[in-house]
Amino acid sequence: MVKSRLTFPQEKTKLFYLRRQILNWIEMDVLLKKVLSEVKPSKAEKTRLGKVAGKLLQRVNEVCKELDVYAHGMLVGSAARGTWLRSERDIDIFILFPERLSRKKLEEKGLAIARKVAGKVRKEQFAEHPYIKTRMGGFDVDLVPCYDVSNPAQIKSAVDRSPHHQRYISSRLTSELRDQVLLLKQFMMGTGVYGSDLKTQGFSGYLCELLTLQYGSFKRVIGAANHWELGEVIDPEKAYSIEGEARELFPKDPLIVIDPVDPGRNVAAALSLQNFATFVRASQDFLRKPDFRFFTPRKPRVLTPQEIRGLIKKRGTKIFSISFTTPDVVPDMLYPQLLKTKRALMAQLKDAGFRVLRSGIWANNKSVILLELSISKLPNVHARVGPPLQVDADDFVKKHLTSRRKLAGPFIDDDGRLLFEVERGYTEAKPILKWALTQRVAFGKHVARSISKGYMIHEGEEIIKLCKNKEFTKFLSEYLTLRLPWYR
Amino acid sequence: MVKSRLTFPQEKTKLFYLRRQILNWIEMDVLLKKVLSEVKPSKAEKTRLGKVAGKLLQRVNEVCKELDVYAHGMLVGSAARGTWLRSERDIDIFILFPERLSRKKLEEKGLAIARKVAGKVRKEQFAEHPYIKTRMGGFDVDLVPCYDVSNPAQIKSAVDRSPHHQRYISSRLTSELRDQVLLLKQFMMGTGVYGSDLKTQGFSGYLCELLTLQYGSFKRVIGAANHWELGEVIDPEKAYSIEGEARELFPKDPLIVIDPVDPGRNVAAALSLQNFATFVRASQDFLRKPDFRFFTPRKPRVLTPQEIRGLIKKRGTKIFSISFTTPDVVPDMLYPQLLKTKRALMAQLKDAGFRVLRSGIWANNKSVILLELSISKLPNVHARVGPPLQVDADDFVKKHLTSRRKLAGPFIDDDGRLLFEVERGYTEAKPILKWALTQRVAFGKHVARSISKGYMIHEGEEIIKLCKNKEFTKFLSEYLTLRLPWYR
Repeated sequence: MVKSRLTFPQEKTKLFYLRRQILNWIEMDVLLKKVLSEVKPSKAEKTRLGKVAGKLLQRVNEVCKELDVYAHGMLVGSAARGTWLRSERDIDIFILFPERLSRKKLEEKGLAIARKVAGKVRKEQFAEHPYIKTRMGGFDVDLVPCYDVSNPAQIKSAVDRSPHHQRYISSRLTSELRDQVLLLKQFMMGTGVYGSDLKTQGFSGYLCELLTLQYGSFKRVIGAANHWELGEVIDPEKAYSIEGEARELFPKDPLIVIDPVDPGRNVAAALSLQNFATFVRASQDFLRKPDFRFFTPRKPRVLTPQEIRGLIKKRGTKIFSISFTTPDVVPDMLYPQLLKTKRALMAQLKDAGFRVLRSGIWANNKSVILLELSISKLPNVHARVGPPLQVDADDFVKKHLTSRRKLAGPFIDDDGRLLFEVERGYTEAKPILKWALTQRVAFGKHVARSISKGYMIHEGEEIIKLCKNKEFTKFLSEYLTLRLPWYR
Repeated sequence: MVKSRLTFPQEKTKLFYLRRQILNWIEMDVLLKKVLSEVKPSKAEKTRLGKVAGKLLQRVNEVCKELDVYAHGMLVGSAARGTWLRSERDIDIFILFPERLSRKKLEEKGLAIARKVAGKVRKEQFAEHPYIKTRMGGFDVDLVPCYDVSNPAQIKSAVDRSPHHQRYISSRLTSELRDQVLLLKQFMMGTGVYGSDLKTQGFSGYLCELLTLQYGSFKRVIGAANHWELGEVIDPEKAYSIEGEARELFPKDPLIVIDPVDPGRNVAAALSLQNFATFVRASQDFLRKPDFRFFTPRKPRVLTPQEIRGLIKKRGTKIFSISFTTPDVVPDMLYPQLLKTKRALMAQLKDAGFRVLRSGIWANNKSVILLELSISKLPNVHARVGPPLQVDADDFVKKHLTSRRKLAGPFIDDDGRLLFEVERGYTEAKPILKWALTQRVAFGKHVARSISKGYMIHEGEEIIKLCKNKEFTKFLSEYLTLRLPWYR
């Protein structure tokens, strides 16, 4: 009797967890059905996209003939594979040219065709090479000239890979798997990690498709991601005999997904450590308690200036904003440059003895770099640590012994280190920032040029002056109330 | 011709250094002779000490007979070995009792003999067991009862080892080696690392003797110390077959000198990392440029209150002093307790987010703990880092999500860490200090008791109020102008 009593609570616990898990899985299935019904395009929507895409392809091929160019159109991307979400309204048409054509000719003829297809509503974009954006039938259309390369390991430009991706994925996706891709993409959207552009640094649609193919279903992807560790390797076509080989090729990437059409490429190359960890945590939390919130992007409330002032005050930190005119480059050039510039400023502040608590970047026509320091004033005294015991310290001592900045030293501290105490050059953060913005060492190139033409520094509550811009207010509100999107 | 020209400067450099080195060694020999002539006691001084010591020994043996005690006196220490500096005026007489005597009886009879020998001018001291201090003929005399233990590995108290040290050293020291010991001891004095008491935490006289025996001369000790690394092992009698074995026994000690009369003991056990490194640096600097300063203790100038105020201001730090009545214990108990208390306070401040730049302790009838912080106010926001990616974060999230102190989070930072930002309990250092002085966790026992009866905190320039005490002013002056003693 006593024994049964003693084991009873354990049994209950086991049963309790088993029951909860079963309930979770039932609940999850109901939830996923509901999500799918909301995000999967209707038959009518599919038909409409099919019609628009067909018309575009036909037009591309006609124009090729008209201009007497040996080329043809190809529908690629999620529209081609039936893996587009209702909220996505993109059609990607690639114009494939023979490999022997010179790059100059390809660009010239490619653009000529694309311009004629697009008509007047068009925007010319310059990524690795130029392409045309237009709108048709309510869809955003990209017209991208590229080479029809037979061996994808010998592409001339990143866009030449897309036709190969297209062939690889579409030959493997079943109707059931397409639904699973939609769920995964929507989960990525809801948790804020969808998009491989260099602003987002998240998961691309192609990556979602590969993950679904690899694991077989949305639930299995989440189940696997739950256990992912840094440097996780996924190699669909077993291009490398051992995992370590693949990891060595991409030592800094948190997730390594070997491109099945080009084993020298990591499909997840753009994924940041932050977004990798966010996806793993999202998977862990979702498995613990499935919820609709994981599929709906969080829209943080925009704070009033009073609320912003209150929160800045409450944090008790020193926030600086550096604002300047956004240089005229594409987002995939702008955001890496802003990040690089932010990191350069952080390094300068760190070298000077300051600690950056948090930071952020934001841009539309203005760009803003936000740097939040725990303190903005350091003591005048600054410890200079000499070489370790077995290294000659003569030069170190000579340099500081007669320095006018010397306060004390040389002496040896409790840890046996040789030290001088010298006066700090700058004790405040603002002059250091200003100096760094004059030197512009390790800044992004176009950002540096823009900053050289002028910038503003705001400090603390002054930053509210930038809130005349509503988009910035949104960004600052999110910064101050930051949380993972599935925690509402 | 061209070739000769090219090699000429190199040859010159080689020659230059060789010449400098030779000059250094000649210079060094001249210097050492001069030092020796100043620190070595004259024949007259030696005779005087011999007379006083002889008289004391005779008196001890007489008293033993008078009181009918089976015991005898023995002269130990530097006086017995002719390794005393002119500035040292200590005579150590040990009273040796048979092993079979109970400890209680030894203390009782030992003190009775010592009291009778000392007469009226005496002070009773309580270390591991009691002994008597007196003065005779201008010398400080210690009368120490101990056991005459045949096997030094089986001693009953630390003092029982001294007769064995006495026999070991005196049987090995030649007249020439005695001079070398004097030079080493004076060098230790001049560089501030002489004395194995727990205030100094430096090198004992016995240690100086062992080092001289080991290496053969003062110059060779310095030449060896020049290359010493942390965890250096010296094992005169090769008690351990491999160095690693000895190091494992004393893993935290910077220098390990195996006691030739007791291999389980590190003679350098009291040596702090700071003093170890100071001696190594002193050796390096001395070899580079021999100078008389290495043998003469630095007497730092005592600053005026105005100068002190100026320097405190110039440092731009936040200095706190905690002062209280010194507990009535021997220095070898007091200083470790003060250090322990200082470390406990530093740990509390560090836990709260503050950085202690430098610190110090001082005592006579008052005790002072000095703590110098780089800043005294922290921002209100405080980052709480969650578990690593593969560890369940449910409890961490639950704990902070509903906390009233939450400012932002959970979110994932650039480094992939899960974070909450919460309000800090205390943002100022003083309340934390006050709280720690109320809790008194990990304080020295007697120090804690004294602090519980009352203490004062002074901050910044207020500390000058403590300068009514001239000795404290000296300490504070040295603290503010701290430098290695051979840098004048």
